Amino acid sequence: MALIEHTTEAPASIIRLHERDDVVIARVPLPKGSEILPGIVLTSAVPAAHKVAIRALQPGDMIRRYGQIIGRATRIIAPGDHVHVHNLGIGDLEGDGHEQGDAKGYVKEYAIGSEVTPVERVSPAATFMGIQRADGRVATRNYIGILTSVNCSATVAHAIADHFRRDVHPEAMAPYPNVDGVVALTHGVGCAVAADGEALEMLQRTLAGYARHVNFAAVLVIGLGCETNQIDTLIESQGLKPGPRLHPFTIQQVGGTTKAIAEGIRHIKQLLAEANQVERTPCSAEHLRVALQCGGSDGYSGITANPALGAAVDRLIAHGGSAVLAETPEVYGAEHLLTRRAVSPAVAHKLIERIHWWEAFCRVRGASLDNNPSAGNKAGGLTTILEKSLGAVAKAGTTPLVEVLEYAEPMRERGLAFMDSPGFDPVSVTGQVASGCNLIAFTTGRGSAFGCAPVPSMKLSTNSALWRHQSDDMDINCGALIDGDIDMEQLGEQIFQRFLTLASGERSRSERHGYGQQEFVPWQIGVIT
Amino acid sequence: MALIEHTTEAPASIIRLHERDDVVIARVPLPKGSEILPGIVLTSAVPAAHKVAIRALQPGDMIRRYGQIIGRATRIIAPGDHVHVHNLGIGDLEGDGHEQGDAKGYVKEYAIGSEVTPVERVSPAATFMGIQRADGRVATRNYIGILTSVNCSATVAHAIADHFRRDVHPEAMAPYPNVDGVVALTHGVGCAVAADGEALEMLQRTLAGYARHVNFAAVLVIGLGCETNQIDTLIESQGLKPGPRLHPFTIQQVGGTTKAIAEGIRHIKQLLAEANQVERTPCSAEHLRVALQCGGSDGYSGITANPALGAAVDRLIAHGGSAVLAETPEVYGAEHLLTRRAVSPAVAHKLIERIHWWEAFCRVRGASLDNNPSAGNKAGGLTTILEKSLGAVAKAGTTPLVEVLEYAEPMRERGLAFMDSPGFDPVSVTGQVASGCNLIAFTTGRGSAFGCAPVPSMKLSTNSALWRHQSDDMDINCGALIDGDIDMEQLGEQIFQRFLTLASGERSRSERHGYGQQEFVPWQIGVIT
Ligand SMILES: [Ca+2]
Ligand SMILES: [Ca+2]
Ligand SMILES: [Ca+2]
Ligand SMILES: [Ca+2]
Ligand SMILES: [Ca+2]
Repeated sequence: MALIEHTTEAPASIIRLHERDDVVIARVPLPKGSEILPGIVLTSAVPAAHKVAIRALQPGDMIRRYGQIIGRATRIIAPGDHVHVHNLGIGDLEGDGHEQGDAKGYVKEYAIGSEVTPVERVSPAATFMGIQRADGRVATRNYIGILTSVNCSATVAHAIADHFRRDVHPEAMAPYPNVDGVVALTHGVGCAVAADGEALEMLQRTLAGYARHVNFAAVLVIGLGCETNQIDTLIESQGLKPGPRLHPFTIQQVGGTTKAIAEGIRHIKQLLAEANQVERTPCSAEHLRVALQCGGSDGYSGITANPALGAAVDRLIAHGGSAVLAETPEVYGAEHLLTRRAVSPAVAHKLIERIHWWEAFCRVRGASLDNNPSAGNKAGGLTTILEKSLGAVAKAGTTPLVEVLEYAEPMRERGLAFMDSPGFDPVSVTGQVASGCNLIAFTTGRGSAFGCAPVPSMKLSTNSALWRHQSDDMDINCGALIDGDIDMEQLGEQIFQRFLTLASGERSRSERHGYGQQEFVPWQIGVIT
Repeated sequence: MALIEHTTEAPASIIRLHERDDVVIARVPLPKGSEILPGIVLTSAVPAAHKVAIRALQPGDMIRRYGQIIGRATRIIAPGDHVHVHNLGIGDLEGDGHEQGDAKGYVKEYAIGSEVTPVERVSPAATFMGIQRADGRVATRNYIGILTSVNCSATVAHAIADHFRRDVHPEAMAPYPNVDGVVALTHGVGCAVAADGEALEMLQRTLAGYARHVNFAAVLVIGLGCETNQIDTLIESQGLKPGPRLHPFTIQQVGGTTKAIAEGIRHIKQLLAEANQVERTPCSAEHLRVALQCGGSDGYSGITANPALGAAVDRLIAHGGSAVLAETPEVYGAEHLLTRRAVSPAVAHKLIERIHWWEAFCRVRGASLDNNPSAGNKAGGLTTILEKSLGAVAKAGTTPLVEVLEYAEPMRERGLAFMDSPGFDPVSVTGQVASGCNLIAFTTGRGSAFGCAPVPSMKLSTNSALWRHQSDDMDINCGALIDGDIDMEQLGEQIFQRFLTLASGERSRSERHGYGQQEFVPWQIGVIT
């Protein structure tokens, strides 16, 4: 086990994504005859972002990238050979075991637990300046939240939050410097859905995850009164405990808009003094739960930001922390690579069950889950579906998969979890935060501007052009790997250190812009009638 | 039991919903022997909100309520008889012609055009103080709008709108008193959907309907840049014309959040002087297009606010104006009553086609479209599915159905239209406004607080208890009918007059509270991946 081991000096012409890899990536277009590593000479020209073998491989040998299997050699491969569709295939690793295959193929392909590598824990763990709550949980921010059961109370929620905006009414929050703000997280659903269906249950789970989120000192839950998503049912079904820190009321109950806004402002004013009584103290990194996300990906995502984030996540987990991978459609077709990392059959089978759910969900709705590399992907150097999916999964590093969660389901374990969600950023992150994440790491190649309340979100640029063009939205430039300024292990360490400083209160770019109140988007799977 | 005495001065004991009706409604619980109309004496006690026959009916005779057929007599009915499940049925009027019926039954049941009653036009038409645009269309408000292609640009959109908020930066708008405001209408979708599917097309149609809405002097359309819902495609596919009054740009194109906010503010500042150059002049009521909506209905909805709104709509259409009924699931099972009012087979068949669409949509998703009266509905006096649906349809009065629209499809005709939508208020109204409505009339019995930008929304309370309890959200009390203070025709006239004053610039309750920017919720029917 050598997860934390640094690679040797990064040569200028290639990028080594992981020390276990059989291939490296051309940083720039390389001519035939280039010596990319001591004694390894290119046998043909290789385009930028394409793969080059650094070991001799026989037909049938497994080939690793990101430290993970992306396929098998289909002919003899020599060190320095270009590796692509002509000599790499997925053969019997093909990810169709979830379709109507036989039991033998199923067992062989999912190979549950076969790639579990124990984590070597670092002791003592790194620390950050966190906010310890009375129940022992540790927050990275200290907000008061306003949640809504239905779209009909969104305007009231925002009117209440407006009253405490530092840019609008600085006097309202001046005495409470330890409260990061009062945020309204509203949505467009909550009524005209089946009262007993999966869609409403998912919304309730999401709202409950926010209601009990460690980054909220207290929350208001505001309804209209006649909505399908009744607050009483929400509270009961989710085991929430109303009280001063979880104050539910409805517009109809208090007698209209003016009274509801007044009620919300009155209640928050009572909460602020106590909410302000927090201090940041050194807390173990084991209290960090990082949501992993990519949005607006490009050809560099799988070469720079995603594996660099993976290197940081491997460090985080070695320090006892947790991370949550999500975005099921992006791992579709390569889920058996995650089952190989599952710590138990139960964990693996829950992932497989989610894949089956998506297949049925999309089939009846005429939607497509195709995740195969496109012609453009192939021109960009991606050979197999495994490789493409692993480009996204690379964010999660290489540690064992300890837990699989349904959307917005609370995390129970520490380590690497997978949460089922769509790939759409706001929907996916909303679920991750509801599951308990208190930090977000978001890679982007096209330039996402995403932010989240009440959780800080850091943005990792996959390329330097984006870093320069959209500098005020990016926190870390992983394009430095392409520029040859840094190697993967150094960048992984830099990202891990940034986890700690952001968790300690340093504000990310998206926080400084005030992102977060428009990006709360619960996953909506039901029919609105 | 004492007889209830009534004179011409005392409140009537019954409510007459329409002059063509065969039944009237008990305003309060009435004992046997009550003389409800001259010479008509109750043959049994009748609960409040239940029906009483005012004519002799033979088995098979059609029975009308709201001027519409709700079923047939199943036995001999005498004037003064309680009319309910024991003597009223739907028989061969049953609304299942859209299921696998034979062609004969189909033709008979839909009876296309059989109930079309020509509209007697009022000349000259009533007028309101409207804002005439250069293209001849007439606005009821004068806003600048900020639309988004995707959730990812929502925060930028709101930051731009914030700059022009009168409550936050009064100086920004002080020179422009004729501009009602700058509003950001954002949403939670726009990416991770099929690029060629019905879901994205519906979103594009909705955004285009707002982009060209008469109540906007100009609009910005802001994207992130890499979203599925590309602005260029939106503009081309919807036939929009970019220019100073339709200014599209993306965050990625201008180089990030700060620059995008600055670009939006800069552009709006250039627009304001011209947008301010409007004046209100007398305009014919034919320019009014009223969205009809109910939300948070109660047992009084079908007795007071809905038929009263219908009486106002009949007046509006006699004056040349238009109204749009929506909320397909609420007419489901009684759509053949609308086909009888259709001006052409094409109009009727488009409605039937939408019903088929809903059936298929719900069937594969395991959702229910059941619209039959519940036990509670029956205890409340509703006998048949036709009667229940007509309680909602009563909002639309009795004029011919001139047009059926898909969700957010632009209106072409004048008169009464039906637009396909769910019943969920924000989703339904968003479609109606996208179709071109410039006024909203919304009935509620539980107490909705809905508002819309850029269109004024008036709220009609179905009962006086709500009117008193939630007075600051209600514009008109239709509970006055139950109190006996007014009759249906007087109330219809009062509502019609309020159409004119609100369209002239008087602000509705929900406008005064600032509702409208959180209630833009495009219908989302696709799979998010
Ligand atoms: Ca992604
Ligand atoms: Ca994503
Ligand atoms: Ca309704
Ligand atoms: Ca409605
Ligand atoms: Ca919103």
